[in-house]
Amino acid sequence: MDPLSRLTELFKQFPGIGPRQAKRFVYFLLTQNNFYRDNLTKLILDLKNSVAECATCHRFYIKDASKSSSCQICSDPHRDASQLLIVSRDVDFENIEKSRTYSGTYFILGGSVPILEKDPASKIRGDELLKLIEEKSATGLQEIILALNLTPEGENTEQYLISYLKPLTDTKNIKISTLGRGLSTGLELEYSDSETIKNALRNRH
Amino acid sequence: MDPLSRLTELFKQFPGIGPRQAKRFVYFLLTQNNFYRDNLTKLILDLKNSVAECATCHRFYIKDASKSSSCQICSDPHRDASQLLIVSRDVDFENIEKSRTYSGTYFILGGSVPILEKDPASKIRGDELLKLIEEKSATGLQEIILALNLTPEGENTEQYLISYLKPLTDTKNIKISTLGRGLSTGLELEYSDSETIKNALRNRH
Amino acid sequence: MDPLSRLTELFKQFPGIGPRQAKRFVYFLLTQNNFYRDNLTKLILDLKNSVAECATCHRFYIKDASKSSSCQICSDPHRDASQLLIVSRDVDFENIEKSRTYSGTYFILGGSVPILEKDPASKIRGDELLKLIEEKSATGLQEIILALNLTPEGENTEQYLISYLKPLTDTKNIKISTLGRGLSTGLELEYSDSETIKNALRNRH
Amino acid sequence: MDPLSRLTELFKQFPGIGPRQAKRFVYFLLTQNNFYRDNLTKLILDLKNSVAECATCHRFYIKDASKSSSCQICSDPHRDASQLLIVSRDVDFENIEKSRTYSGTYFILGGSVPILEKDPASKIRGDELLKLIEEKSATGLQEIILALNLTPEGENTEQYLISYLKPLTDTKNIKISTLGRGLSTGLELEYSDSETIKNALRNRH
Repeated sequence: MDPLSRLTELFKQFPGIGPRQAKRFVYFLLTQNNFYRDNLTKLILDLKNSVAECATCHRFYIKDASKSSSCQICSDPHRDASQLLIVSRDVDFENIEKSRTYSGTYFILGGSVPILEKDPASKIRGDELLKLIEEKSATGLQEIILALNLTPEGENTEQYLISYLKPLTDTKNIKISTLGRGLSTGLELEYSDSETIKNALRNRH
Repeated sequence: MDPLSRLTELFKQFPGIGPRQAKRFVYFLLTQNNFYRDNLTKLILDLKNSVAECATCHRFYIKDASKSSSCQICSDPHRDASQLLIVSRDVDFENIEKSRTYSGTYFILGGSVPILEKDPASKIRGDELLKLIEEKSATGLQEIILALNLTPEGENTEQYLISYLKPLTDTKNIKISTLGRGLSTGLELEYSDSETIKNALRNRH
Repeated sequence: MDPLSRLTELFKQFPGIGPRQAKRFVYFLLTQNNFYRDNLTKLILDLKNSVAECATCHRFYIKDASKSSSCQICSDPHRDASQLLIVSRDVDFENIEKSRTYSGTYFILGGSVPILEKDPASKIRGDELLKLIEEKSATGLQEIILALNLTPEGENTEQYLISYLKPLTDTKNIKISTLGRGLSTGLELEYSDSETIKNALRNRH
Repeated sequence: MDPLSRLTELFKQFPGIGPRQAKRFVYFLLTQNNFYRDNLTKLILDLKNSVAECATCHRFYIKDASKSSSCQICSDPHRDASQLLIVSRDVDFENIEKSRTYSGTYFILGGSVPILEKDPASKIRGDELLKLIEEKSATGLQEIILALNLTPEGENTEQYLISYLKPLTDTKNIKISTLGRGLSTGLELEYSDSETIKNALRNRH
């Protein structure tokens, strides 16, 4: 395979990119100057040096002068240590942090558990989570918030996590809570499913 | 204007129908047999006789032998008279009733209040609602549930209704509640807006 | 089934209308005044009296004082009798007539021939077309233009018609032509299929 | 700006990529192994060495052992030297070549001329084209085929090129032709615009 086709193949692995757009990326790069291409490749190669996975919450973070093995949030003494919010992926973390409504700590599962999955443990960072809860229980952890997609896979992950964590959280007297369900922004009642209506009615206030 | 164009114009007033589809409706009718067309027009003309607006909740309902001026739900002694759920339109009522999670009574506002509307009272059945609450307060009404779209117009209607009803409900000691907010079915955290995340966190349990 | 559900069922048979929109049509009609509903039903019922199928080209046309059994186009001595353009449906005829680029006469097939159809003759007005060509050949018909969709079903109909008409048109020395193929308005070469590029190159000028 | 944000900014310049997808690309790269990232950056950096712009037709092509300054098509003695097909971009060339219906030579304009453009010459390789036609006229060039999008900008480019080339092609007795217009694959007459119907009727055969 020639270099253009090989580069096209690599771009096809980017999330959401089909063969036609992958090829357009290649032509786009061909028409860019060296400065852009050098910048792009330098930044990609530097990811290894500039970004680390937090030893505590497992999210990717920009390394700084501190040489800490934990990210800025996990190292921040002002974050509320009594709460631990669990998400599937970094993008979920980012979106929640952007909403500026949560001041506790995080844990990134690194995935979710598909329905009928035979080996759920292989899909998420279960061991690391148990270990972290154990540690944090010694320093005031009171609540674990499961923040998962309201999709079949997200609900399955939630169920799995609840049974997985329960033995430990019961012992340590830590509450497990899940996100509130009901109407989300923009929703019209005419187009709401029965489950959402049920949740919205039950959680009325 | 010729009859085909006049009929096309009338179909263009149907919700969601543009000029091209309106014309296709006309050609569709031209190719149907007399039986279909007679049936269709008969049912349309019979709407006046077969359907009535309920004197209590103002929804459209199929008249029956009872000659009652109230719909089957308003006449049903098994519905919970302590709850009154308020919606904008008949389709909202239908969708909530379909979810089989509510056993109280209803009121159809007949519309909603657009933001910056100068004459909100003209947009909804405010007088009729006040009168109904007054009556129902004598027979056990304890809670009014505002079930409005989570859109700017729906939220505006909710705000308007709360101030409009408050003097009466305070006097009568009736609670006003609104639908729970949070994640609705299918929602992914990556694509959730900050408002929904805030609601989902606040209403966690 | 109650009258509202029966009316919803009839609207579901309208082209392109699903159950939800059918129901919205019913509620729309419920909120219209008598004047609108009377107008609508009157126009639908009058279709039988106000519209006729042309005995010559088989399109639907508005009857006029002339009591003619042929439509205004078929009766118009200024239309070019040497050309007969064949389309599947009235909407195709309308769109071509709207383009103001054709001054000959028309014939409406009333359908098209699906691929692998066992009884093609049952799908289109074949006998009527043969009879019309026979008649028109006596009054100067020189060209039959097949104006069919460039879809698999349209191309199949075209092939079927060519073999069906050939014995007669060869005898009468009438030319059969098909619409030009190539780039249509808005098309970008990047997104063109090979067949269209082939046609566009072959038909360059 | 941190390295992740800077990389996100670069991906936002990729064709068709918004801020959210740019960020997903960054997270995608973070979760890939070194092998993938090294491969990707190596191929991007090698573009400069592995790909050249053809000195004749100006398309990008994979360099080979021949050290030729012209691409494989321009160097191929079996391509028909009597035809020169002119396209805006490499993707247009690729799509036409993929259709296997053209055996002549190509020229890539490198862009198109927007309507009301004040400096059309700056948008396309006009000088290079004139020079190439001059040369090719000595070796048998008989026809220039303008293969441009059937969009307002494509049609404007076509008009500009015709006046731009005419003095030379008239002198050299070279024909300028444009792609055929009419129905393109999948088109239905009901949804065709008048211009396309006019072209399809005019180019019938």
